[in-house]
Amino acid sequence: MGRKCTNQIRMAGYILIVFMTAIGNKIQAQENSTRQGPSIISPEISTDNSVTFRIFSKNANSVSLTGSWMGARETKEMTKNDDGVWSVKTDPLESSMYHYNIILDGVSIIDPSNPKAMRDGNRYASTLIIPGKGSENFEVNDVSHGTVSKIWFNSPSLGFNRRMYVYTPAGYEDNKEKYPVLYLLHGGGGDEDAWTSLGRANYILDNLVAQGKAKPMIIVMTNGNPDQKAAITETTPLPTKEVFFTLSEKFPESLVKDVIPFVEKHYRVISNSSNRAIAGLSMGCLQTQIAALNYPELFKYIGLFSLGLHDNFADVNTRLIAAYDKNLKTLEANYKLFYIAVGKNDFVYDGVQVLRKKLDENKFRYIYNETSGGHTWANWRNYLSDFAPMLFK
Amino acid sequence: MGRKCTNQIRMAGYILIVFMTAIGNKIQAQENSTRQGPSIISPEISTDNSVTFRIFSKNANSVSLTGSWMGARETKEMTKNDDGVWSVKTDPLESSMYHYNIILDGVSIIDPSNPKAMRDGNRYASTLIIPGKGSENFEVNDVSHGTVSKIWFNSPSLGFNRRMYVYTPAGYEDNKEKYPVLYLLHGGGGDEDAWTSLGRANYILDNLVAQGKAKPMIIVMTNGNPDQKAAITETTPLPTKEVFFTLSEKFPESLVKDVIPFVEKHYRVISNSSNRAIAGLSMGCLQTQIAALNYPELFKYIGLFSLGLHDNFADVNTRLIAAYDKNLKTLEANYKLFYIAVGKNDFVYDGVQVLRKKLDENKFRYIYNETSGGHTWANWRNYLSDFAPMLFK
Repeated sequence: MGRKCTNQIRMAGYILIVFMTAIGNKIQAQENSTRQGPSIISPEISTDNSVTFRIFSKNANSVSLTGSWMGARETKEMTKNDDGVWSVKTDPLESSMYHYNIILDGVSIIDPSNPKAMRDGNRYASTLIIPGKGSENFEVNDVSHGTVSKIWFNSPSLGFNRRMYVYTPAGYEDNKEKYPVLYLLHGGGGDEDAWTSLGRANYILDNLVAQGKAKPMIIVMTNGNPDQKAAITETTPLPTKEVFFTLSEKFPESLVKDVIPFVEKHYRVISNSSNRAIAGLSMGCLQTQIAALNYPELFKYIGLFSLGLHDNFADVNTRLIAAYDKNLKTLEANYKLFYIAVGKNDFVYDGVQVLRKKLDENKFRYIYNETSGGHTWANWRNYLSDFAPMLFK
Repeated sequence: MGRKCTNQIRMAGYILIVFMTAIGNKIQAQENSTRQGPSIISPEISTDNSVTFRIFSKNANSVSLTGSWMGARETKEMTKNDDGVWSVKTDPLESSMYHYNIILDGVSIIDPSNPKAMRDGNRYASTLIIPGKGSENFEVNDVSHGTVSKIWFNSPSLGFNRRMYVYTPAGYEDNKEKYPVLYLLHGGGGDEDAWTSLGRANYILDNLVAQGKAKPMIIVMTNGNPDQKAAITETTPLPTKEVFFTLSEKFPESLVKDVIPFVEKHYRVISNSSNRAIAGLSMGCLQTQIAALNYPELFKYIGLFSLGLHDNFADVNTRLIAAYDKNLKTLEANYKLFYIAVGKNDFVYDGVQVLRKKLDENKFRYIYNETSGGHTWANWRNYLSDFAPMLFK
C-alpha cells in the first residue's frame, strides 16, 4: 500500500472518528446527557487479577462497593482523591463472572464507567469477567454461536400470549436436522431473560458444543411467573394476586400443554422423551420437580439446581411429595438422568438433603453434585456446564 | 367454585407469594443486595400525566432529575422530605416514551425504583411511557408479535463473525411464505440492539401490521460499528483505530456482500430489489446513502432519517457526492421511494437542506417529512412508523 493510500486511509479514519464523536456527543446533548468530570477507567483489572473500581463525585458523602465475591451484605469503602475520584482496589479475584454495585450516599447504582450491566429481576448490577479457567465455559469465545430468539406464543392454560427465549444451536439455520430440547427454568425474581443474561446459557452451550462435550440442542427458556406476559421491561405484570396460585401446578401445566406443543410444532425437534430434558434453579427447580413427577413419562433427563423438598412450601410441598409417592416408580421405569446440584452454603441445602433421603429410601438413582458456594449464578452457570454434557447420550 | 376450593386457592396463592418473596430476598441476600430504606414508587404518573420521581437517600448532598422532555442539559432539582425521600413533580407530559436519569451528587444514575431501563451505547437511562395517542404505535399491544432473533454470521469483508438482530413478523414460523426485507441501520454510539431497545422497531411493526397499515416484513438490524463483533455488553471492541476507516465504504460493503446474502440464504426472503428496503438514522443514514448510491440497483425503497450531506465529513462526503453525481440517474430508473425526514431543531438540519437542494437540482423525486424536535429517538420511532407503511406496495 503506497504512502498516499495509507494517508488517505488515516485521514478517512480520523474524519470518521471526529464524525462519530461529534454525532455521538450531539445526540447525547440533544437527549439530555449530563456526563461530566475526568475520564474514569472502571473496573480496571491488574495483572494479578486484583480490580480497581472508580467513580467521580465531587460532593458525595460516602461511597462504597459491594460485589458478588464478597460475603452477604459486605461492603468495602471507597476513598476520594483530590480530583474527586473515589476508588477501591480488591484483593486478587479468581477467574469468574462477578456482579457489583457502587453504593453512593446509600443508593445502590451501577458503575457509570462500565457499559456491562445486567438486570436481575427489578435490580441492575454491573458485571465483570475475570478471564481464565473459571470463565472459559461462558465467555464469548471464537466459536460458532447459536441464535437466541425472543418469540411469543399463545398459552391457553394461562389465558394470554407470552414471550419466551429459544436458543437454537449454531448450524440450525443451515441444515434440516432435528434436535433434542432442554427446557430450562429460571428462579424467583427472574424471567425469560435470566438464563441468557445472567446464566449465559447460550454461550455455555456454544462452548460445550464447539468442544464436542455436549450435543447440539435447542434450549427453551420460559417466563415462570404466570402473572407476566413477558419480562417487566416489556410489559407490566397483571394486576392480580390470584394468578399466583397458578404457580404451583399451573405453570408446569402450561409448560406441558402450551409450550412443548408450540416448540415441537415450530422448531425442528425430535419429539420423544429421550430427546426432552428439563432443568430449573430454585423456584424453577420446584416447577421442574412438579413437571417431572406429574408427567413422569415426558422427560428422560431432569436437572434440579438448588432446591429440594421444603416444609415451608406447605401444600405445594405436600402435593409434590404425593406426586413423588405416586409416580416415582413410573419415572424410574422411564428416565435416564436425575441430576441434583447444590452448594454447601446454600440456604436450601437442608431441603435438598430431605429430597435425597426420600430418593435413597426408594433406591432411586441420581447424580449428586455438591459444590462450594451458595444460591448464586456462579453456581448455576457451573451446574448447567456440568449437566448439559450428560444429555441425550 | 365452592368456598373450600376458593380457600385452597387463596392459601396456595399466599404460600407461593411468601415462597417467592422468601426465595427472592434470600437469593439477593446471597448475591450482595444492599436495598434498604422505605418503599418508593417512582416514577408515578398522575391522572393529568404529570410525573413524580422519587429516590431515597438520607445523606446525599444534591439530587436532581434530567429527562428527554427537558431542554438540552436542563435539570430539575429534587427536594428531600423528613424521611430522606427526594422527589420532584413534572408538569403534565405529552403521551410518548421518555428516558431520564437521576443525578445523585453529580453522578447520573438510573432510577433504582424503576425496573425499566435502556442502554444507549455506553450509558444507561430509565424509561417511562406515558400511554396515549403518542405511544400507541410502539407499545406492547394485545396483537400478534413477531420474533426478534440475535443471530451470528460470518463477515468476510470485515474479517470476523458478527451479531445482528433479525425481526421476523408474526406468523413467519407458521407458514411457508417469503417476505420483503428492510435493512435498518442505527446511529453513532448505537449497535445492533438499538433499533429494538430504543427504537422499538419490532413493536412498531407488530402494530402497523396488525392495523393493516404495513405489509409483514423482515427487519435486519446490523451492528454498524466495524470494530465491534457485537454490542459492547457481549464483546469488547477490537483494540484498533485503523478499523474505523472501514466505516466509510467498508460497512456498506459488508452489508451488501455479507449481510444480504446471509439473510437471503437463511430466511424466507423475496430476493429482488422491489422487496428490499434500506433506512438508517444519523451515522446509519450516511451508511444508507453510501449503500444506496454505490449500489443503485439494489434497493427500491430508501429511508434517510436525520442526516444529509455535510462538509465536515470531508472526503467521505466528497465520495458520497461523487456517487450521487455518478449514480443518481441509475437510481432514478430503479427506485420507488426516497424518503427524507428531519426535525426542525436537529443539528443536522442544514445538511439535510444541502441534500434536498442537490436532489431538487436533479429533479429527483423524494418524500420529505419535516417534523418538530431534534436528533432524538422520539423522532426516529415516528419516522419508522411513517416510513414502513410506504414499503413494498
